[in-house]
Amino acid sequence: MIKKILIANRGEIAVRIIRACREMGIETVAVYSEADKDALHTQLADEAVCIGPAPSSDSYLSMDRIISATIITGADAIHPGFGFLSENSKFAELCEQCSITFIGPDSKVIARLGNKQEARNTMTAAGVPVIPGSTEPIFDAETGAAAADEIGYPVIVKAALGGGGKGMRVAETPADFLQAFQTAQKETQMAFGDNTMYIEHFVQQPRHIEFQILADSQGHVIHLGERDCSIQRNHQKMIEESPSVALDDGLRKKMGDAAVKAAKAAGYVNAGTIEFLLEKSGNFYFMEMNTRIQVEHPVTEWVTGIDLIKEQIRIASGRPLSYTQDEIQLTGHAIECRINAENPSKGFRPSPGTITDMYLPGGKGIRIDSAIYSGYTIPPYYDSMVAKLIVWAKNRKEAIRKMQSALGEVIIEGIDTNVDYQYDILSHPDYQAGNIDIEFIEKM
Amino acid sequence: MIKKILIANRGEIAVRIIRACREMGIETVAVYSEADKDALHTQLADEAVCIGPAPSSDSYLSMDRIISATIITGADAIHPGFGFLSENSKFAELCEQCSITFIGPDSKVIARLGNKQEARNTMTAAGVPVIPGSTEPIFDAETGAAAADEIGYPVIVKAALGGGGKGMRVAETPADFLQAFQTAQKETQMAFGDNTMYIEHFVQQPRHIEFQILADSQGHVIHLGERDCSIQRNHQKMIEESPSVALDDGLRKKMGDAAVKAAKAAGYVNAGTIEFLLEKSGNFYFMEMNTRIQVEHPVTEWVTGIDLIKEQIRIASGRPLSYTQDEIQLTGHAIECRINAENPSKGFRPSPGTITDMYLPGGKGIRIDSAIYSGYTIPPYYDSMVAKLIVWAKNRKEAIRKMQSALGEVIIEGIDTNVDYQYDILSHPDYQAGNIDIEFIEKM
Repeated sequence: MIKKILIANRGEIAVRIIRACREMGIETVAVYSEADKDALHTQLADEAVCIGPAPSSDSYLSMDRIISATIITGADAIHPGFGFLSENSKFAELCEQCSITFIGPDSKVIARLGNKQEARNTMTAAGVPVIPGSTEPIFDAETGAAAADEIGYPVIVKAALGGGGKGMRVAETPADFLQAFQTAQKETQMAFGDNTMYIEHFVQQPRHIEFQILADSQGHVIHLGERDCSIQRNHQKMIEESPSVALDDGLRKKMGDAAVKAAKAAGYVNAGTIEFLLEKSGNFYFMEMNTRIQVEHPVTEWVTGIDLIKEQIRIASGRPLSYTQDEIQLTGHAIECRINAENPSKGFRPSPGTITDMYLPGGKGIRIDSAIYSGYTIPPYYDSMVAKLIVWAKNRKEAIRKMQSALGEVIIEGIDTNVDYQYDILSHPDYQAGNIDIEFIEKM
Repeated sequence: MIKKILIANRGEIAVRIIRACREMGIETVAVYSEADKDALHTQLADEAVCIGPAPSSDSYLSMDRIISATIITGADAIHPGFGFLSENSKFAELCEQCSITFIGPDSKVIARLGNKQEARNTMTAAGVPVIPGSTEPIFDAETGAAAADEIGYPVIVKAALGGGGKGMRVAETPADFLQAFQTAQKETQMAFGDNTMYIEHFVQQPRHIEFQILADSQGHVIHLGERDCSIQRNHQKMIEESPSVALDDGLRKKMGDAAVKAAKAAGYVNAGTIEFLLEKSGNFYFMEMNTRIQVEHPVTEWVTGIDLIKEQIRIASGRPLSYTQDEIQLTGHAIECRINAENPSKGFRPSPGTITDMYLPGGKGIRIDSAIYSGYTIPPYYDSMVAKLIVWAKNRKEAIRKMQSALGEVIIEGIDTNVDYQYDILSHPDYQAGNIDIEFIEKM
């Protein structure tokens, strides 16, 4: 069993990991930047090592310094958390070379899943649905129309090399195709100096549904149900919940089976997440697999009762899974709101600074994962998420009310937060009715 | 359904009730003493009414003022919490006379269960085990010995009119009886000027095991399993947990059935608790029934998932129970530590005062019910319990570690607390092994 873990992260996830280690009797080493001298993770760990100045490239992203800190403190494993080096296959490889246990999958698996095309090919070969798309470069409308017929309408025509929305057109039906293709190709030529096109099935108003999986080194893979993360702003998740109102037991089994198949196809070991887009029709498509713990893991923890960080550590220690698929039951409903230090009325501008007064709610069904405290100064260098408020109740309606009530109690003085904005989302009739998709915030 | 509730209490239980009401869409009225102007419950409720000066007799125990506040604010129900007027049958009767819903059982049921002898008779008639004792006054050793044989050894010989430990002797076997009786009777004569004796079975090193029950006005009664509250100091509970390591499924069913029988025999409606003493032998005896919500209700909430305050309100609104006995499952293990403002090294002297700095832990499996905040001044007039720290994990061992870790994170500056003392109990090998009884603290 692992005896000492260095946590290569900061903020609430570092605190979360320290707590799990302490409960397991495992020693902890925090690393911190000069800006994080007074951070909670620095204070809570058994040991703390300063690894450099504030910019992440000089501290939390510095592989050498983190490996050195691990060796110096005699830690036998690194937990990377999320963000920073958590999905960096080179870092995982470096750990392997230094005989440090990287708490996550094998470096080769991270590399394979990090390459979008390779991941897509792996999933296709395993029979996991991916968004149907053209397989060859397309240069003319006639070839494009044939490909679109095969893919199935609606389709989106995209610049093969493009990005940022340029050279993109949706064709709802075959009648729209010619104009859509020509416009998109013209734009592509102008924007990128190239006219190679790519055609893909257009997934309409999808939900973001992801499945949590756990896989051990003995070859067992289970899933812990889904999270609905459709409430996003600029592709940043804001609210996550489990279970999703869009899934019945049949669809849950179908998507869960696909998630397990995906993990097995990738040779995955440890905790991971398979992200899908789900259409109203019930069709779903693999987007990507995240090879780390997710920000939103607490909602899964609450409906399943399973401690995902502890499972990660057990798996990395070579232990088999503590649960079989049959033992996994989703009970009640959990919702997470991310509390960010930002000002929604000023374009969500980050709002670092000193917290002059703070009161966070408690009581039945309330969980708070945070690294802030009254008097703490949020540095301007890192992600604006400073706390996660998670609630559990026996059904979605009660969970929403609990979250509204809890958000209403939050007091964080000295900085701006998105608490009121979150309250508004929770109070929206469409959110309450469960009518959500990834465009919800834009349309709100 | 009840639309507006006046909470006739203060502190964390008032906050707990306000939160439940808010989540149910019920308006709340707080009452507060002049000393509780800045209290959290005063701030959190929709309305707050000052009902008098600090001494409880002039405010929280003043039936007239509380009834007046209820009528003035148009509340249709009163939740009494625990302590104060919660088990006062006259107050419940007054509510009934004023057509205010008292959230608890009928005033006659409170009166009947509040009279120890009547409660004992009710339970005996219903076949619920009570501590066997002599039924007639005893004046001589010969009659006493015959009674003791019938009751079963060990027995305790007591002054019938006595108290305070005077005139009490334990006889382990019949051979000890004569001397025990004569000594006790001599002491009784000297202390009370009377020589009437009472003989009772002596319950050795018992555990305090209580069963939570829920009963609706349609006649359904269920139990929600047990709480082990053996960790007590001067009959004040300090740590409570559910389930108890002393119960297997068979004994749980037997005691649970007895608890349901007890509630039915009393004509009980609403949430209540049947307290038993449990011997090592597996014999258990009814002590008393508490006709209110208990301080330690959160441990039951966590292992069952049921919100007891909401159930109380639903029952008082005339709704049938939301659950059947078959649906009740105890999952995992929950422990509660009471955090008191007191100094264990100075004889547990209360330590009111201003909290100058505070940090309470959070994260998976942590629940905090409190009414304190940084900058809050704890008034000297009330109970010293200022917060409850509740943890949940999949088994007792993990729950103990989580509680140790959580207690280790607590920072409450400006006053003294029993946090370190609680940590010492949790760390005691006997506590960890589950070898506990109501004398644990004395022997520690």
